[in-house]
Amino acid sequence: MNDAALPGISVITLGVADVERSERFYMDGFGLRHARPPKGIVYFKLAGTQLALFPRDDLARYAGVEPVAPGGFTGTTLSCNVASRSAVDALTARAETAGAVVVRAPETVSWGGYCAWIADPDGHLWEIVWNPKWDG
Amino acid sequence: MNDAALPGISVITLGVADVERSERFYMDGFGLRHARPPKGIVYFKLAGTQLALFPRDDLARYAGVEPVAPGGFTGTTLSCNVASRSAVDALTARAETAGAVVVRAPETVSWGGYCAWIADPDGHLWEIVWNPKWDG
Repeated sequence: MNDAALPGISVITLGVADVERSERFYMDGFGLRHARPPKGIVYFKLAGTQLALFPRDDLARYAGVEPVAPGGFTGTTLSCNVASRSAVDALTARAETAGAVVVRAPETVSWGGYCAWIADPDGHLWEIVWNPKWDG
Repeated sequence: MNDAALPGISVITLGVADVERSERFYMDGFGLRHARPPKGIVYFKLAGTQLALFPRDDLARYAGVEPVAPGGFTGTTLSCNVASRSAVDALTARAETAGAVVVRAPETVSWGGYCAWIADPDGHLWEIVWNPKWDG
């Protein structure tokens, strides 16, 4: 049943209000680089996947659903494991400088890791985390 | 500035109403297998990343935001590139049998690919797509 099993996630697409604003945010705040020349949709190359920015209403229509207005918690989060506590601090600070809202400042959490949560300009949530036991 | 660039996306987490229901959906519908024994949170291993299922309200609280009730379009979509049109049909059919809502049936789209859109039990959207020019 190879044809009917999910081989992986090729692209994670974020619906955004202003593609150019978000493009700048992800380049300045996270150091991302284009996977290909942007033409209305922006694709960033990451290890194992791509991150895309797509006008939010167009993304809803392309998916075949109603483009309901943003309403707080999206129900989806993206986590980025980094190599140290200081890397959590550094990436969080860089993202904040680029316009992220730090919704949870870097701190040691109950399970033993150290993490921060930030929101991008459209409220998409990222966990920046150091996990001493991470097995990736 | 290695410490302040995003190295990749380690985990994509979906907030769900019923972790066991979603666990069955992703195992039956997409053929996913656990990355580690589930303990309240489920982690599936995928190429280059992991997909996690987390109780929706707990995920919001962990992220430091209000757990607003689900409200239609989430603003985030996940795409899975497969190797052929028939693979799009097969994976879509398998997911539907497992409880997905097919929001856009498989069809040839304007840019030359062939794709379907499905919603998981919580409305998280997946594009199942064959792209003749995909460069991954």
